Amino acid sequence: MNRKELSALIRRKRSFLCVGLDPDPERLPKHLKGTADDPLFEFSRRIIDATIDYAVAYKPNTSFFEVHGSKGWQSLEKTIDYLKNHPKGPVFAIADAKRGDIGNTARQYARAFFEHMLFDAITVNPYMGHDCVKPFLQFKDKWAILLGITSNPGALDFQILQPQLPMLLEKMGIKTVYWKKLYEIVMEQSMNWGTYDNMMFVVGATHSDQLSNIRDLVPDHFFLIPGVGAQGGNLEDIAAKAMNKEVGILVNASRSIIYASSGEDFDLQAGKAAKALQMQMNAILEQNQF
Amino acid sequence: MNRKELSALIRRKRSFLCVGLDPDPERLPKHLKGTADDPLFEFSRRIIDATIDYAVAYKPNTSFFEVHGSKGWQSLEKTIDYLKNHPKGPVFAIADAKRGDIGNTARQYARAFFEHMLFDAITVNPYMGHDCVKPFLQFKDKWAILLGITSNPGALDFQILQPQLPMLLEKMGIKTVYWKKLYEIVMEQSMNWGTYDNMMFVVGATHSDQLSNIRDLVPDHFFLIPGVGAQGGNLEDIAAKAMNKEVGILVNASRSIIYASSGEDFDLQAGKAAKALQMQMNAILEQNQF
Repeated sequence: MNRKELSALIRRKRSFLCVGLDPDPERLPKHLKGTADDPLFEFSRRIIDATIDYAVAYKPNTSFFEVHGSKGWQSLEKTIDYLKNHPKGPVFAIADAKRGDIGNTARQYARAFFEHMLFDAITVNPYMGHDCVKPFLQFKDKWAILLGITSNPGALDFQILQPQLPMLLEKMGIKTVYWKKLYEIVMEQSMNWGTYDNMMFVVGATHSDQLSNIRDLVPDHFFLIPGVGAQGGNLEDIAAKAMNKEVGILVNASRSIIYASSGEDFDLQAGKAAKALQMQMNAILEQNQF
Repeated sequence: MNRKELSALIRRKRSFLCVGLDPDPERLPKHLKGTADDPLFEFSRRIIDATIDYAVAYKPNTSFFEVHGSKGWQSLEKTIDYLKNHPKGPVFAIADAKRGDIGNTARQYARAFFEHMLFDAITVNPYMGHDCVKPFLQFKDKWAILLGITSNPGALDFQILQPQLPMLLEKMGIKTVYWKKLYEIVMEQSMNWGTYDNMMFVVGATHSDQLSNIRDLVPDHFFLIPGVGAQGGNLEDIAAKAMNKEVGILVNASRSIIYASSGEDFDLQAGKAAKALQMQMNAILEQNQF
């Protein structure tokens, strides 16, 4: 799916919601384990059916499939097949795999997710540099979504590193020129490896104080924004700071939707939670005349 | 396998060789594709049989299996089973997967490689911080191998970033105090997340000018060193700079061993290439009285 198609989908569905498919073995509804032949796929399928009216994108996290080995990978293959052939499609499918390796190896990962499975996008870790990202940019209408600043506490370990001297001077009341943080350098440099037609960035909602700056730095690219809901990010605030002239954001919610209930009505409750978010998004889109 | 057992294995086998199992679909011996039921596993099995007298560790890269989807994962499962039950074992098995994700997700990856498959270690990308690494450190006698500085050209994009002011001053001939590069900060901080009993670092052989400094910074941990052979690193030089009092290095060779021949004798030639490296390693171990 290319950028124009994704933007059109957002306008048509009145939603920029991405549903994270994280079928945690410890949180799957108990009744599924007994009855379903393939509980991972059954869970994913029912979540998709219940939420597809309200979501433009889905993001299975590979770890929850990989923990079951090749059998889990079969469930992942079934899930992406189901997604890409859904009668209520199209939807934008993101493999949240956070891969990253040197050139020829990265190419195999790209082929795994773009050719063997028909994902539209894959999350990629940029730490190893350009030759680990560019192989993902060679596929028509496919996307690499680079980790910019992530939503977890550990994001503060390295991603925000910046030279210590200006911070010291600031503490002493001496104004200095602005020195960039690591994630800003990463985003600014890596955005030139591709275009806004084949690259997005992960920008965690938990850093909402940085969001306006980040949007100034990277005006045109889509942001995939996790951290709304269970992790505490506020939707209106995020949209106000991060939207661009083509909407330009996908907001991911996982746990607040897929674990809205652990009973037999889990899909019904997931649908309600997704609808509530979509209605908020619709209001935001209207306010901004999309 | 714990640290003492790994060190004992190195002394007994007179080798600190790790063989990288990268069954590139474009470089697999052609005759295997026609004859073998599972060419990926058949290739890996024959490389293992031919090199196990000379190697202490094996490092399948998951991308070359994943590109074939769940079927490739079956080959990976067969490969790790074969490795861990080899009559000439034990060997240290590393999943070169470069995973990295937030806490609960990281735990699924850890379970995938440490419990579902019986790898001893997995390579981990530290960019997302402590909560993405610590879940890998909760398993007895299992290891996280963190990317320190990698061997590829893109390592120069971010991993060596350092404040610009001291570099400018140095160019002007003014000596400044030493300012750390990103990978040094990463290694120095992350080494405290675990111990030298559950954590190693990837240190690319292509940065041999930095190796002595890196060893001073991280004196006790094992280093997994790729980049010897096809990528040009020199074994004697690396050993001189990076060995510690317990040897403390695993040197990986992939292409120079597994693609030593593309004919029917590929395993024979792989064995010869591995033996040549092991003989060099034996001489180095003797020089250093191990």
